Amino acid sequence: MKKIRLGIIGCGIAARELHLPAIKKHKDKFDIVAACNRTEKKAKEYSLLTGGIPYTTDCREILKNPDVDAVVIAVPIDLNYKFAMEAIKAGKHVFLEKPLAAKPEEARKLIALQKRAKKVCFLAENFRFDPLYIEAKKLLDKKVIGDVYSVVWNVFNNLTLKDKYAQTKWRQKNKYPGGFIYDGGVHNAAALRMLFGDIKSGYASMKTVNPAIGTEDTFSFLFNFDKTTHGILNIFFSVRGFRSNEMIIFGDKGSLIIQNTNRIVIKKDGRKERKVNIKTDGGYENEFLHFYKIITKGIKNLSPFEEGYKDMMILQKAFESAKKDKLIKL
Amino acid sequence: MKKIRLGIIGCGIAARELHLPAIKKHKDKFDIVAACNRTEKKAKEYSLLTGGIPYTTDCREILKNPDVDAVVIAVPIDLNYKFAMEAIKAGKHVFLEKPLAAKPEEARKLIALQKRAKKVCFLAENFRFDPLYIEAKKLLDKKVIGDVYSVVWNVFNNLTLKDKYAQTKWRQKNKYPGGFIYDGGVHNAAALRMLFGDIKSGYASMKTVNPAIGTEDTFSFLFNFDKTTHGILNIFFSVRGFRSNEMIIFGDKGSLIIQNTNRIVIKKDGRKERKVNIKTDGGYENEFLHFYKIITKGIKNLSPFEEGYKDMMILQKAFESAKKDKLIKL
Repeated sequence: MKKIRLGIIGCGIAARELHLPAIKKHKDKFDIVAACNRTEKKAKEYSLLTGGIPYTTDCREILKNPDVDAVVIAVPIDLNYKFAMEAIKAGKHVFLEKPLAAKPEEARKLIALQKRAKKVCFLAENFRFDPLYIEAKKLLDKKVIGDVYSVVWNVFNNLTLKDKYAQTKWRQKNKYPGGFIYDGGVHNAAALRMLFGDIKSGYASMKTVNPAIGTEDTFSFLFNFDKTTHGILNIFFSVRGFRSNEMIIFGDKGSLIIQNTNRIVIKKDGRKERKVNIKTDGGYENEFLHFYKIITKGIKNLSPFEEGYKDMMILQKAFESAKKDKLIKL
Repeated sequence: MKKIRLGIIGCGIAARELHLPAIKKHKDKFDIVAACNRTEKKAKEYSLLTGGIPYTTDCREILKNPDVDAVVIAVPIDLNYKFAMEAIKAGKHVFLEKPLAAKPEEARKLIALQKRAKKVCFLAENFRFDPLYIEAKKLLDKKVIGDVYSVVWNVFNNLTLKDKYAQTKWRQKNKYPGGFIYDGGVHNAAALRMLFGDIKSGYASMKTVNPAIGTEDTFSFLFNFDKTTHGILNIFFSVRGFRSNEMIIFGDKGSLIIQNTNRIVIKKDGRKERKVNIKTDGGYENEFLHFYKIITKGIKNLSPFEEGYKDMMILQKAFESAKKDKLIKL
């Protein structure tokens, strides 16, 4: 099978630290053939990391390059729309880093374009391919905790300017709603949808505790999947003194807890706890493999733009709920 | 100082296990002189516990008894109104176990009556007198964690028919909204108000996971104290496999966690955790002492019926929110 020749658009943290290790694991499937970044320094650095591939500051060069089969777009959120649109129009396969777009109308335009696209449009939401959530889903489907009636997911972090993500200027002065809550929260939305289905309604509160890291950093959301199952998502980025990431899933026969990013604990009355440690890179390796198989084997795209749209709209609507102090329907 | 002569109305679990040990600590301040319960067996048992005091199944005997200065009312929630009203009309000091009443209109009638009452009307909400919350309040007032912007309180329990409270028929077939969520939740509402002020608005979801213990047992509430502080209260009574009671208070300079019913942990970045174990009986001893001092020394009543009304209305409104799927204002 011929390898897929990748052009990299955006050489920031995601490209270097999340995508590159995953692509390297699939050496037999991908060749990185060109890289582009607005800042030449970053493009050059990426080139050095990848054996000295050609680099540029003008991404149109990548899109015009007939040697590029597919582009991996990992740019500031507000630029997703522009680059994805141009890549689709240029006839490339597209691997677009989440969230789909900064604004709902941009996202809808991308979906419309995707429908006419001749090539694959893949929204890179790694949580959908993370062995952690895939295993949790299996266990829930097997009814190990019976029927689920609620989920409480607390993500408590202290993100300061020491953090590499918080140091990126486009995150500090975000041109999209929700700041880090949006950036990080679409992952949570994706995992919740994957495990429990679509969210139908909800109400949120949101605040800015540490403005240095962006517009909003504290978010609480109470939502309903349906009449029988509801949930709470707390994403706090400016928590002082401790960190914690725990999703507690409440079933009528037991509880399943996803701790941090690699452990599942099943608790039942009177039984010894069952702990499962999951080996995972966050799902990046799997998502590149899936992207490859959609292109080469024609398997079903499990993360088309429509899925990314549903994830992002949960956050967009929740922000609207918090800002206008009203219930929202999805 | 003359001792206050108490008549006990309702000889159930609260009277026996919560009130009696506290009253016994104040032997120099209270004499229990009569007891009443609809079921003679219970009245007799209580009499035996208290040295063979006279008992009856007709509470009017207590209310007519000139030797009774004050009555302690601890009856099924739906009977609070009837007995409190009759006790006020009979001219007794009243110590009324929370919640104030089963219905808002009953509560408002009691408040109107209280205003014309010549004697003390005290709503026994022990959390207001619990050394745990009093200490937490002191620490927050001292700004040990800076300005508070959020609170998340998770109360996860598995209440089955093995539990003595769940065995009471009036709880299983509750004639008041919210079942155990109401019964227990007014305590949480009182503590939240005490620590952070009045709740202004919110949205709730509620379900019945185990109908054997009453109408509702699972409750999530997202609420706002004001524009700068919001909170989440999860009260789940049918959690399988683990128990937990933790209030996490988020301040811009640190976090304060109230664990179970007797420990405060303060967490700050880069510092050793500070843990404070609080010696507490839940506040019962303090609330009886306070009741005594209101009557004998004329100190300010820190728990008049109006306060109990505010506590109960948070729950009543939240139930309305969940049932009608709407935001509520308080």
